[in-house]
Amino acid sequence: MSERPRRPGPSVRTRVEEITDDGVRRREDRLATEEPLEIRLAWPGSPARRVWVTMRTPGHDFELAAGWLRHESLVGDDHISGVAYCTDVDLEPEQEFNVVTVTLSSPPLHDPGQRHETQSTGSSACGVCGKDSVAAALTVTAGERWAGPLPEPSVVRRLPEALRIQQQVFDRTGGVHAAGLFTSTGAALVVREDVGRHNAVDKVTGARLLAGASAAEACLVVSGRAGFELVQKAIASGVGALAAVGAPTSLSVDLAREAGLTLYGFTSEGRTVRYSG
Amino acid sequence: MSERPRRPGPSVRTRVEEITDDGVRRREDRLATEEPLEIRLAWPGSPARRVWVTMRTPGHDFELAAGWLRHESLVGDDHISGVAYCTDVDLEPEQEFNVVTVTLSSPPLHDPGQRHETQSTGSSACGVCGKDSVAAALTVTAGERWAGPLPEPSVVRRLPEALRIQQQVFDRTGGVHAAGLFTSTGAALVVREDVGRHNAVDKVTGARLLAGASAAEACLVVSGRAGFELVQKAIASGVGALAAVGAPTSLSVDLAREAGLTLYGFTSEGRTVRYSG
Repeated sequence: MSERPRRPGPSVRTRVEEITDDGVRRREDRLATEEPLEIRLAWPGSPARRVWVTMRTPGHDFELAAGWLRHESLVGDDHISGVAYCTDVDLEPEQEFNVVTVTLSSPPLHDPGQRHETQSTGSSACGVCGKDSVAAALTVTAGERWAGPLPEPSVVRRLPEALRIQQQVFDRTGGVHAAGLFTSTGAALVVREDVGRHNAVDKVTGARLLAGASAAEACLVVSGRAGFELVQKAIASGVGALAAVGAPTSLSVDLAREAGLTLYGFTSEGRTVRYSG
Repeated sequence: MSERPRRPGPSVRTRVEEITDDGVRRREDRLATEEPLEIRLAWPGSPARRVWVTMRTPGHDFELAAGWLRHESLVGDDHISGVAYCTDVDLEPEQEFNVVTVTLSSPPLHDPGQRHETQSTGSSACGVCGKDSVAAALTVTAGERWAGPLPEPSVVRRLPEALRIQQQVFDRTGGVHAAGLFTSTGAALVVREDVGRHNAVDKVTGARLLAGASAAEACLVVSGRAGFELVQKAIASGVGALAAVGAPTSLSVDLAREAGLTLYGFTSEGRTVRYSG
């Protein structure tokens, strides 16, 4: 009988050499785990089919799958009827915890294969200029939007540190990004980590969906920069504001302004820069 | 007559509000430009077809296209016969500088559509476990490998600063990553920037290919972390060592060790950590 596969953890141990002016020191280090995750989608009358593969840090895989589907506007509220690791006979034991099947109560909101026929990238760069891309992003991101109060800038400036103190995998590895959902008064609702900064946002939205709560909240905070895809996910999740520790890009500012999303960049305790809203 | 479209630059101006304890200051800011780039591939007997779309910072687009094709093992040495912006009648003026066609002197080394049939992501996560992914990455990354001397760790520790002083777009925007190719004695051969850290590596390799030089050199340096895909590109480019300012992941260390690539992480003037080699 084959041994039951061990579920991969968020970090792994390895031997390294640290080299300073004092010489070479051999020691143990911890690395953020990076493993592929395959997301399959099934609904009544349709067998499970692969819709995406991403590299991710294991942990909160069901949330990652649910959040990614929501950010792609493939699922609406109360649409997911089940999430499970795959137990196909054709999977090796090592692959078992790297395949997740999401089952829907009704067909997805659009054909999951449709977008990928005309593009060979995981990104949403459907058009071939920024204007096209903004228009395409606005078309697919229908959903509930946060209508409540937004955090004051003085509150926004505290959020990166509030996110930081919950980054357990980062503390061990120094190698993962984080995303967190906060109320307008700065209370953390959910914080998630991943080697992929987009995945961390997917996990946050997925955590809310699977808990039956709304992802449309006051403020999403991310530990890195705010590129186009991150702003797109923020809009799809329905949050009122996005605060990034790093810089936004030209296209992300265009999209935030067009969609009415409040966007902050270079956010720290000392300052923040408001690009829209 | 329509106006000749302006070629997008690497950064754009925008109005922002900077918020500190002293209040709100309205000022001008510079954002890193993010625009989609579509790469088309043509060869004798085959019309141009779209093979990839990525978000990127405009500039060195031909290099980005050439380097990406090389990292995907679609092209070999002396294989590219031409690179040009598209002038299709169906393109809007704004799209013109966002579509690049690469013409090959003979068919690509494998079918560019093949890999994408079984996966809907730009990443190379073909397998559904790390072992599969490492095996798949090793299969597709044939090519010339650097056989010369590697930089000493004391040299490696100087390279991030040598990269940093050439980051002109970062100086203006604070929002782009960089990659550079260095000799074993620490001389910079080529440095490129992009909002996408993978793109910056593509541009470096493409710059060497289009100049008729070998991308197989002593050391590639990247301003961010060293995830699986970055290590994969480093191996495909043929470099001897990869030095990252940030952390590697479990899978990137596995791949580097398997491929015999020397991998450094957390590299700064004060220290570096060797994970393989």
